[in-house]
Amino acid sequence: MLDVAVEEARKGLAEGGIPIGAALFTADGVLLGSGHNRRVQNDDPSVHGETDAFRNAGRQRDYRKTVMVTTLSPCWYCSGLVRQFNIGAVVIGEATTFSGGHEWLAENGVQVTLLDDQRCVTMMREFIAEHPELWNEDIGVAE
Amino acid sequence: MLDVAVEEARKGLAEGGIPIGAALFTADGVLLGSGHNRRVQNDDPSVHGETDAFRNAGRQRDYRKTVMVTTLSPCWYCSGLVRQFNIGAVVIGEATTFSGGHEWLAENGVQVTLLDDQRCVTMMREFIAEHPELWNEDIGVAE
Repeated sequence: MLDVAVEEARKGLAEGGIPIGAALFTADGVLLGSGHNRRVQNDDPSVHGETDAFRNAGRQRDYRKTVMVTTLSPCWYCSGLVRQFNIGAVVIGEATTFSGGHEWLAENGVQVTLLDDQRCVTMMREFIAEHPELWNEDIGVAE
Repeated sequence: MLDVAVEEARKGLAEGGIPIGAALFTADGVLLGSGHNRRVQNDDPSVHGETDAFRNAGRQRDYRKTVMVTTLSPCWYCSGLVRQFNIGAVVIGEATTFSGGHEWLAENGVQVTLLDDQRCVTMMREFIAEHPELWNEDIGVAE
């Protein structure tokens, strides 16, 4: 399932954007929707990888058995999304380059799986080194 | 400032949507952007009042001195938005019909002002009574 999110992150990178991708699946592994960060491409600060995947999955009546897969530890904004909609599980590519609210989600009953995927780590590490100002903007770190 | 958010909520109601509005201001009271819940209108589950206002305010480099004004206590999704981007203050129309993450925000250093605006209470109370299924969908309460 992580491959779908990684592919989304790579699409974002190719578009000149921040390389974070996500995908929402059913518990059986059926893809409901995938997406990637669109801050740069759409000039829209509200579209993180997870919120784009959530939007592309359309309106769902029950998220409890869905799985949000993301290349990077979800920030507070995206962690809040998971908690509010009772998304049952989150699979995270890595939390080395950034650590958001995944421990808070685990404390609140979300099944969290934290991987250490080197594709994800390398992609983010290189992006942050090349575009620190964009990255800081995306996580609300002021200069 | 709440009047701008209330006006947005009324616009949403007139469009057949969920009547929650929000607006982002500078500390000096300059409006950066306003918006309202668009779940029904755009068929988009990711657009809450606060996220719409945040989007419409465009890309900002520093949110610490901004004020998010919303007609209703922000859900976890929108509370996460406030925390991640270090929005300095939140003004809330009411938390009677729904209580989200505003206490968590206050614990984490956000200046929270909770009003008891009867326009907001009445609008939400009537909407929830008429459209309980839409309201539950919007806050992730499964049937």
